[in-house]
Amino acid sequence: MPLGQRAGDKSDSRYCGVEVLDFPAGDGLPAVLTHSLSSAFDFLLAPLVDPEYRPTPGAVLPVAASDLVLSPSQWSSHIVGKISEWIDLDSEDEQLRLDSELTLKQEIAWATHLSLQACVIPPPKRSTCANYARVVNNILQGLTNMQLWLRIPLEKSESMDEDRGKSETVDSWEWWNSFRLLCEHSSQLYVALDILSSLPSMNSLGRWFGEPVRAAILQTDAFLTNARGYPCLSKRHQTLLTGFFNHSVQVIISGRSNHNVSQVSEGVLSGDENHTEDTPTRHALSPYLEYMAYLYQRMDPLPEQERFEPLMDNLEAQTYETFEKDTVKYTQYQRAIAKALVDKVSEDEVSTTRTVLMVVGAGRGPLVRASLQAAEETGRKLKVYAVEKNPNAVITLHSLIKLEGWESMVTIISSDMRCWDAPEKADILVSELLGSFGDNELSPECLDGAQRFLKPDGISIPSSYTSFVQPVTASKLHNDIKAHKDIAHFETAYVVKLHRVARLAPPQEVFSFTHPNFSPKVSNQRYTKLQFELPQDTGSCLVHGFAGYFDAVLYKDVHLGIEPNTCTPNMFSWFPIFFPLRKPIYVPSESPIEVHFWRCCGATKVWYEWALVAPSPSPIHNSNGRSYWVGL
Amino acid sequence: MPLGQRAGDKSDSRYCGVEVLDFPAGDGLPAVLTHSLSSAFDFLLAPLVDPEYRPTPGAVLPVAASDLVLSPSQWSSHIVGKISEWIDLDSEDEQLRLDSELTLKQEIAWATHLSLQACVIPPPKRSTCANYARVVNNILQGLTNMQLWLRIPLEKSESMDEDRGKSETVDSWEWWNSFRLLCEHSSQLYVALDILSSLPSMNSLGRWFGEPVRAAILQTDAFLTNARGYPCLSKRHQTLLTGFFNHSVQVIISGRSNHNVSQVSEGVLSGDENHTEDTPTRHALSPYLEYMAYLYQRMDPLPEQERFEPLMDNLEAQTYETFEKDTVKYTQYQRAIAKALVDKVSEDEVSTTRTVLMVVGAGRGPLVRASLQAAEETGRKLKVYAVEKNPNAVITLHSLIKLEGWESMVTIISSDMRCWDAPEKADILVSELLGSFGDNELSPECLDGAQRFLKPDGISIPSSYTSFVQPVTASKLHNDIKAHKDIAHFETAYVVKLHRVARLAPPQEVFSFTHPNFSPKVSNQRYTKLQFELPQDTGSCLVHGFAGYFDAVLYKDVHLGIEPNTCTPNMFSWFPIFFPLRKPIYVPSESPIEVHFWRCCGATKVWYEWALVAPSPSPIHNSNGRSYWVGL
Repeated sequence: MPLGQRAGDKSDSRYCGVEVLDFPAGDGLPAVLTHSLSSAFDFLLAPLVDPEYRPTPGAVLPVAASDLVLSPSQWSSHIVGKISEWIDLDSEDEQLRLDSELTLKQEIAWATHLSLQACVIPPPKRSTCANYARVVNNILQGLTNMQLWLRIPLEKSESMDEDRGKSETVDSWEWWNSFRLLCEHSSQLYVALDILSSLPSMNSLGRWFGEPVRAAILQTDAFLTNARGYPCLSKRHQTLLTGFFNHSVQVIISGRSNHNVSQVSEGVLSGDENHTEDTPTRHALSPYLEYMAYLYQRMDPLPEQERFEPLMDNLEAQTYETFEKDTVKYTQYQRAIAKALVDKVSEDEVSTTRTVLMVVGAGRGPLVRASLQAAEETGRKLKVYAVEKNPNAVITLHSLIKLEGWESMVTIISSDMRCWDAPEKADILVSELLGSFGDNELSPECLDGAQRFLKPDGISIPSSYTSFVQPVTASKLHNDIKAHKDIAHFETAYVVKLHRVARLAPPQEVFSFTHPNFSPKVSNQRYTKLQFELPQDTGSCLVHGFAGYFDAVLYKDVHLGIEPNTCTPNMFSWFPIFFPLRKPIYVPSESPIEVHFWRCCGATKVWYEWALVAPSPSPIHNSNGRSYWVGL
Repeated sequence: MPLGQRAGDKSDSRYCGVEVLDFPAGDGLPAVLTHSLSSAFDFLLAPLVDPEYRPTPGAVLPVAASDLVLSPSQWSSHIVGKISEWIDLDSEDEQLRLDSELTLKQEIAWATHLSLQACVIPPPKRSTCANYARVVNNILQGLTNMQLWLRIPLEKSESMDEDRGKSETVDSWEWWNSFRLLCEHSSQLYVALDILSSLPSMNSLGRWFGEPVRAAILQTDAFLTNARGYPCLSKRHQTLLTGFFNHSVQVIISGRSNHNVSQVSEGVLSGDENHTEDTPTRHALSPYLEYMAYLYQRMDPLPEQERFEPLMDNLEAQTYETFEKDTVKYTQYQRAIAKALVDKVSEDEVSTTRTVLMVVGAGRGPLVRASLQAAEETGRKLKVYAVEKNPNAVITLHSLIKLEGWESMVTIISSDMRCWDAPEKADILVSELLGSFGDNELSPECLDGAQRFLKPDGISIPSSYTSFVQPVTASKLHNDIKAHKDIAHFETAYVVKLHRVARLAPPQEVFSFTHPNFSPKVSNQRYTKLQFELPQDTGSCLVHGFAGYFDAVLYKDVHLGIEPNTCTPNMFSWFPIFFPLRKPIYVPSESPIEVHFWRCCGATKVWYEWALVAPSPSPIHNSNGRSYWVGL
């Protein structure tokens, strides 16, 4: 039973599982499953094979339950397999290593036979886990559907490295990083994080939001007790759990009950206690589940723009209809135009002066409407030229103007703005040519051309815009791009909803453009070097690329943008843009990241090139715009 | 005119060029060329465009000489273009940056028009050279035949980084490394090293032997003066130059003459002095060229095994004929067999005891011959079984035995050793199943099978063997592999002559096998972790993979092998083996390199997997033997 209903949330984070700690000997598994499901848990993390088992020639694998004991759908929907925890593939003991390899392969083969969706494999037992990674990598090559979730303790912990005879503090993210690098970023390898009572810094935790975390295994020991004796979590744990819910991570409750607040006796976990279907014993871990449901239901509903699907899309595919619904955006335009009108025409002149305003790229008329509303609001007279090259949009524009009775105020120009010869010059030039990265849809080139319609003291709305980038961990996105198996897709920027992403440092400015620009030597080529310092307590991380945004000054203090720190709320016209790196780059703790961005202009196209310079140089991406460009 | 004749040397290092320092204004270039060629230089490094030139709209490029002034073959064979040295693509001055980009592209376009083989581009002017690299990378995408040689000062030098306002010592290799990483290891990008009077440590210099160095530009300032007033080089310079000669690097003499030892006056470099064809002036730099010729001619002739071609080949392609010519190898076998015979049969028993010796894999008989010679040499009686599965080789074997009159001593068994049922057990089992990496051609598996023919106290020759690896810089090899554009070729080990390779640390042992091995539980799987510490004065480097070797104990103190420190001299049967890394790994100065090697055995095949663990983990290479294996 899901933790709750949350409008727009279709992610797995609604589901909550429970870990079965004791081996359900005999045919105990069905009873444990029934009891857990009737107690509102959604699935079990259950051992598949007797943990006492060691490989013996000719022996039958002592499984928890034969495949006939549960139905195929029960196996696949309600059981996540737990691989025996004793296996130790990096032991100095060769026999233990060989036994571990054989057992791991046998258990995975059994789980595949059961059609399980996933198995949890135990945490690496020491800091070097190359042999463990090698065997898992071998297994991953042969898996088609099943996922492997590598269990990793969330806390920075003491290493149990017997090789070096001393304990040292290890950042468990480093384990994960080595493991997945050795396994070539396999798209079937995920993380299951063990959450204990103490937590590392929020910056350190934040890295996981860009990693493929499928489950948070929440230990009962991590809970506190509230005044009424019920389990609850610290504020920091609550924040973390909310973060996981927002990143499609499902929770698994694990451990013995420390809060015996149920009305009936301690529940059944190991399945070997007697209970009957009609008087179900309350599950010992129910209080923890109830607290999870409380946390889940307490969350704010998903904001409008978060509900968009699919994840990867580009703006061209979206319709005018969708754009025009973005009322926040046009309200900002109206405010900017109103301010410009007031600046252009003083109160003394309102009756005598008519302002000439041109909308370049009028589409189906939203900016025409915003302009006229601004004129009405400020009591200024307006003459509007609506320039639009799409003949279909022009048809709609004509009917809109007739319908609204704007004929006297609006002249429709069905023409490409590059070809049009304006009959008079404008006081105000209004456009909405901005892309997610500001200048990525040729706004600079278009407005340079259109400013010949503008009076020397004319105003462009927007009057300037700036792009921003920040380094991110985004393993899912990177794997999606890698699936194309070519370089061109890694040299393309994607307009994309950034869902499972860790933002590693505050965004910085990249390119700025100001309009109008009447200087004699205008170049829209740009070159910017940026250096990012990660917060000291982040630890090391992997950078998959850069998330890009824009902020535009429409006029004076009226701005519009998606840069996270200053973004216009409830605006959904733009997703961020993502500039990938061909190879994810490991950034050691406290090492700066230096990235260079170029905006290049050729005779027929405009494109970006980008390259990492520190901590280590990457190839120049998209050299000569070979993979990704916008045609002029 | 080449520096000299050296048997077997077909490399470019025979040729010596001279740098033209002053711009040959007017039509001076032909005169300079004629004078230099008649002075025994082979080519010029010459400016193509007036260094005073800055881009001006509509201006004609002020070239040194029109394409008609020299013949096409003179341009392509005798001129290396020198790109204007003022260009500075990473200046803070945007105009200088843009002028530099335009000029660089114009000069390269001109050089392409002239069909030059190569151009030297000036050294980066500051430590960050990302924009320079970007423009060069753009150019490289469009070049088909011409090479670009990036000029790099060999000495660790003061950085002129104006950005940071302070000077810092920079390892010039780091410049090169950043540059080529940004340029994606382009196979048309090379290095031209400027050699000055002071040199960094030999370990630091050694890195360059694995890099694509095409020219050593030797400054006249780097020369000393000998007792007779002639130019000469320090011992360290001599060693370096010999190293370059051995790695196909050609020398270019550069600078003003500091040794005016010629009988006539200072020669012509700038081409604007008067001289006539019939009374040629001695070239001012002739004394330096003569010293180069002396150094070149003084070198030892190339050893036999260095003359083999092609570079990449595998042993299967070589014939029995070639193998049998390796007399050193069979002499070692004979010595080992002789020692074993003496140990087996004491002087008292020589007349009564006949030793049974089996040659498994007898081929056309070289080990049969070695065995019989050992018997004769030691006065021991011998019965030889020669087992060979190749029926063609068996035919030759029969005629050999008839020819030599060995019928009474040798029994030929035309059979696969795995199927043969021996009529008696052997005292000595002799085989030559070793590959370049020792166990890489199934010697362990074959000898495990063949040892059933051996008496419990029998001797196997070889009695043990060990493989070795060492990290190397090998940019040429890596680029050759990359040309295949797939992962499989990067997960394959190559038997290859390691010509342009920098060996970064002494080889270490990987896997060992001992024969016979009568223990009940024999496994030929192996797993070894190795850690390499580079000499402290090496600096940082790039590792492209691992060079592999073997050493075999044939019997007691008689060994055979190609491990560089202990290799058997003048043996040419084996080239080294090379295990590539999919991505070259940057190893910061003083960081250890940790690599893991697995020898894996399946039901039908044997293969290696390998992975780098430090300084950063690589993917596991050749998982499940998917790309490279030997079938059982």
